[in-house]
Amino acid sequence: MIATIPPAQIGMPLAEVDTPALLIDLDAFEYNLAKMQNDLSDSHARLRPHAKTHKCPLIARLQIDCGAVGVCCQKAGEAEEMVFGGITDVFITNEVVGTQKLKRIAALARQARIAVCADDAVHVTAYDEAARAGQVTLDVFIELDVGANRCGLDPGENLLELARQIQRSPNLRFAGLQAYHGSAQHRRTPTERRSAIEFAVSRVKEAKALLGHHGFPCPTVSGAGTGTYLIEAASGVYDELQAGSYIFMDVDYAKNLGEDGNPLDRFQHSLFVYTTVISRSAPDRAVVDAGHKAVPLDSGLPIVSEMKDVEFVRASDEHGKLRLNNPASSLKIGDKLKLIPGHCDPTVNLFDWFVGIRNNRVETLWPITARGAMR
Amino acid sequence: MIATIPPAQIGMPLAEVDTPALLIDLDAFEYNLAKMQNDLSDSHARLRPHAKTHKCPLIARLQIDCGAVGVCCQKAGEAEEMVFGGITDVFITNEVVGTQKLKRIAALARQARIAVCADDAVHVTAYDEAARAGQVTLDVFIELDVGANRCGLDPGENLLELARQIQRSPNLRFAGLQAYHGSAQHRRTPTERRSAIEFAVSRVKEAKALLGHHGFPCPTVSGAGTGTYLIEAASGVYDELQAGSYIFMDVDYAKNLGEDGNPLDRFQHSLFVYTTVISRSAPDRAVVDAGHKAVPLDSGLPIVSEMKDVEFVRASDEHGKLRLNNPASSLKIGDKLKLIPGHCDPTVNLFDWFVGIRNNRVETLWPITARGAMR
Repeated sequence: MIATIPPAQIGMPLAEVDTPALLIDLDAFEYNLAKMQNDLSDSHARLRPHAKTHKCPLIARLQIDCGAVGVCCQKAGEAEEMVFGGITDVFITNEVVGTQKLKRIAALARQARIAVCADDAVHVTAYDEAARAGQVTLDVFIELDVGANRCGLDPGENLLELARQIQRSPNLRFAGLQAYHGSAQHRRTPTERRSAIEFAVSRVKEAKALLGHHGFPCPTVSGAGTGTYLIEAASGVYDELQAGSYIFMDVDYAKNLGEDGNPLDRFQHSLFVYTTVISRSAPDRAVVDAGHKAVPLDSGLPIVSEMKDVEFVRASDEHGKLRLNNPASSLKIGDKLKLIPGHCDPTVNLFDWFVGIRNNRVETLWPITARGAMR
Repeated sequence: MIATIPPAQIGMPLAEVDTPALLIDLDAFEYNLAKMQNDLSDSHARLRPHAKTHKCPLIARLQIDCGAVGVCCQKAGEAEEMVFGGITDVFITNEVVGTQKLKRIAALARQARIAVCADDAVHVTAYDEAARAGQVTLDVFIELDVGANRCGLDPGENLLELARQIQRSPNLRFAGLQAYHGSAQHRRTPTERRSAIEFAVSRVKEAKALLGHHGFPCPTVSGAGTGTYLIEAASGVYDELQAGSYIFMDVDYAKNLGEDGNPLDRFQHSLFVYTTVISRSAPDRAVVDAGHKAVPLDSGLPIVSEMKDVEFVRASDEHGKLRLNNPASSLKIGDKLKLIPGHCDPTVNLFDWFVGIRNNRVETLWPITARGAMR
């Protein structure tokens, strides 16, 4: 839920929007929505975009209107906000641990299809018990380690035994394999990304064969992100694709190179942190009112949009320091700039409202209802 | 305002607190409050702690009860939440730019003493106009660049001219000098910190002499942080000290060394991100439910409290990866750990509630009402 005052009003000129504010360029955003769906139009694989990127049921609804089959979430709290906002098919691509969380998930499963991940018997036992108590059925994916070395099992006896346990559990349904390779998304050359996903595909094939050999059909293989979804889509073994960042793009994803060695420009930057110059105390320096409490640094610094001579060089909590490489720059106190965030997901998580902009006017205000929903 | 459900209930055992949650060890926190006030008991300098650290008026009130003269804030929105929570003396240690923000500040100044910073005639003109329109008087500090190379003027003609402009402005009062040296706080050896603050002190003396020579008494010199406050306090020229992190401490501040070459242990770690083990899919690895959306990485990784063999080695959005250096470690799925954040300020900014713990029970739930107040 959102209790804060938005930084803008509908119809207001962009220049009047208070800062820092999180802008969506609606033309670019809609281009990205359509581009992804078009990319997948001939594919067997369905889109189930990750809502951890936007944390906003209104955007999830737009994605479903474009053809997505539902959304992914990372946390129980995100799933709640999606269901509260009218989304009826949510896959929590994560192991959910804790009595209170499982009670909440079971309650949600009365109003939506809820799927979760497991990589241990402990998860399956707890899911079955929560589903029994809540008188619901939960879908359970087994998480496969496809190279991330984070959660997930190798293809082998442990995986098979977990599938057996799920099948024995009266309140669970075996939904398939979670096979997401996170770090592959950000490898810079197409060769590196292809090689990582070829490994993931081989692991999925191995796991599917093992399960099939023992009489477990694998309804859905789910994975992929904005950096690699075309590879998973072409693999023939992935059924659902979890790309999320494609709607916004960020500085980090824009560093991925295409086959021609140039940065990939498949999607457009549509997400910006709007910020105001608050100090010009040196000729080659401007300070803006967005620091790392507005643009997190986990994937590097933001870039100043549409200003080649202006470089964002340092962020403290509430200050961003810009180097003006053209000393004749006319940046004044009160001027407003757009920053392209280093990483869209944690940036969105700091704001309560998206300000949708078209033709330099505020067209929409969308609440980020799952902001901070980390439990 | 807070609209989210807290992760705990009063009286609950710590082990039942849902995760990720932001804990305060109340014994350590109270030790820190008393220790700071005791350190300053013989000093001319008054404490005006920075509320950007805690964003919580209830904590500001505790600091004032211990002797602080008011609080500092970084943003207009933080100042609003402090005044809404009963704090009547707020210094916004920053240049505030934008018509809407200045209207809000002028409204606040009807209920509290509000001070702001300026380093340009543009600021002073806008402050005077907003104060006139709101029929209030605003206190204005001139920001002096004491080595941070961020905002602020050098001692010299520009500074003098700004003091003249403030004096000519019918709705403003010249309050003194803002002379904070941010990066000095985190220099590791006492020699480096002393040298940085000696430079700051020399700049303050120069500016005060210049102002005095031209008939401008300088009511208050304000600055200092948790890393250097004893040096500013001993300088004789600083009147107010802005240290904030001392109440919580973090991994970064704990790297500061004392005169004996050992890490300074002047304050205790009182702030923790409570997190649950969600996966144990490899013998030397555990994954917890706190990633960088719970513990930001701008000042490095968190540390696992009270577990020497367990190392937090990587954070993705919602996952923290732990390396278990003792393979016999008994960490199980569902076990809960306390992380000491790399940097307390941006960590607090991700949570809506502090869960105050004493003797392993939940004693208090404090809303972080200025969470996200970046405008």
